[in-house]
Amino acid sequence: MRSIPLILVFVLAVAIGATVIGMPAAVEYPSGYRSWQHVKSMIIQPGHPLEDPFGGIHHIYANPKALDGLRSGNYESGAVFVFDLLDFTDRDRTIVEGERKRIDVMQYDPDRFSGTGGWGFDTFVGNSKSERVDQNVVNACFDCHQSAAKSNYVFSQYRQ
Amino acid sequence: MRSIPLILVFVLAVAIGATVIGMPAAVEYPSGYRSWQHVKSMIIQPGHPLEDPFGGIHHIYANPKALDGLRSGNYESGAVFVFDLLDFTDRDRTIVEGERKRIDVMQYDPDRFSGTGGWGFDTFVGNSKSERVDQNVVNACFDCHQSAAKSNYVFSQYRQ
Repeated sequence: MRSIPLILVFVLAVAIGATVIGMPAAVEYPSGYRSWQHVKSMIIQPGHPLEDPFGGIHHIYANPKALDGLRSGNYESGAVFVFDLLDFTDRDRTIVEGERKRIDVMQYDPDRFSGTGGWGFDTFVGNSKSERVDQNVVNACFDCHQSAAKSNYVFSQYRQ
Repeated sequence: MRSIPLILVFVLAVAIGATVIGMPAAVEYPSGYRSWQHVKSMIIQPGHPLEDPFGGIHHIYANPKALDGLRSGNYESGAVFVFDLLDFTDRDRTIVEGERKRIDVMQYDPDRFSGTGGWGFDTFVGNSKSERVDQNVVNACFDCHQSAAKSNYVFSQYRQ
C-alpha cells in the first residue's frame, strides 16, 4: 500500500479543522505568561454566539510591554497578550475553573505583521506549546479585532 | 449637647458592622499585589451560603514567597495571599467583572500570629488602602481557614 503523501495529510488536517503539530507558529509560545500581569477575566457561557470557540472562563495576561501599551495606548514591538481559556463548572451557585482549553496569543511586531495592524496571532491547544488549531487563525483573529481599531486592535482595557 | 466619647463611636461602629478607618491594620496593605502571580479565580453567585460577604468574582494573587509555599507546601515569613473580590454582571450569557468590593489579605508571620496558625488576616474595603470592616476579622477568617489545616491553612492549590 502506498503511503499517503505528507502534504495531503496536512491539507486534510486543516480542512477538517483538526489540530496541527509541528508547523511553525505565527507567533512564539509565550513562555512564562502565567507570571505576567493578570489584566482581567470574563466568562462566556453556553448559548452565547461566541461559545464556539470562546466558551469558558478566560483570563487576559500582559507582558510588561503590553501592560505599558494598555496604560499609554501605544504599543512597542514585543508586546504580547495572552487570552487563557479554561473550562468551568457551574454548580451549587459557584463557578469553578476547569482544564485549559487553549491559549490565544497576540504579539505586536509592526514589521513582521504589517498586514494585520502590526499584530500576529496564534492559538495553542490545551497545555501544549506546539499544537495549534490551523493556520487560518491570523486572519480570523484580526477580522474580529478590527472592531477595536481605535484602541490599537486590543479589546482589553486597563483596570486597577 | 455633650459630644459622644470617641470610644463609644468606635464600639458602635464595630457593633453595627460599619467600616472603620484609621485603626492599625492586622496586616499591611499589600501594595502592588495586582502585579503578583494570579493563582486562580472563582465565582460565588447569589444564593450561595457564602454570598455574604464573598459573593462576586474573586481572584487569588500570591507574592513570590506565597507562590513558593504553594509549590512546596511550606511557607516563609512574609508570604502574602490576596483574595481580590469584584462585583460581576451576569447578562446575555456573559459574566463581566464590576467594581472591587474588598480585598482580603493573609500574611504569614509565625512569630506575630502564633495564635492563628502563623497567619494574620485583614480586609480592605473597595479600593481603599486603610478602610476596613472591623477588628474581628482575624478570628473570623481563621475559624474558616482551620478546615485547610493540612495545607497550612491555605485553600488555594497551585495550578499551571
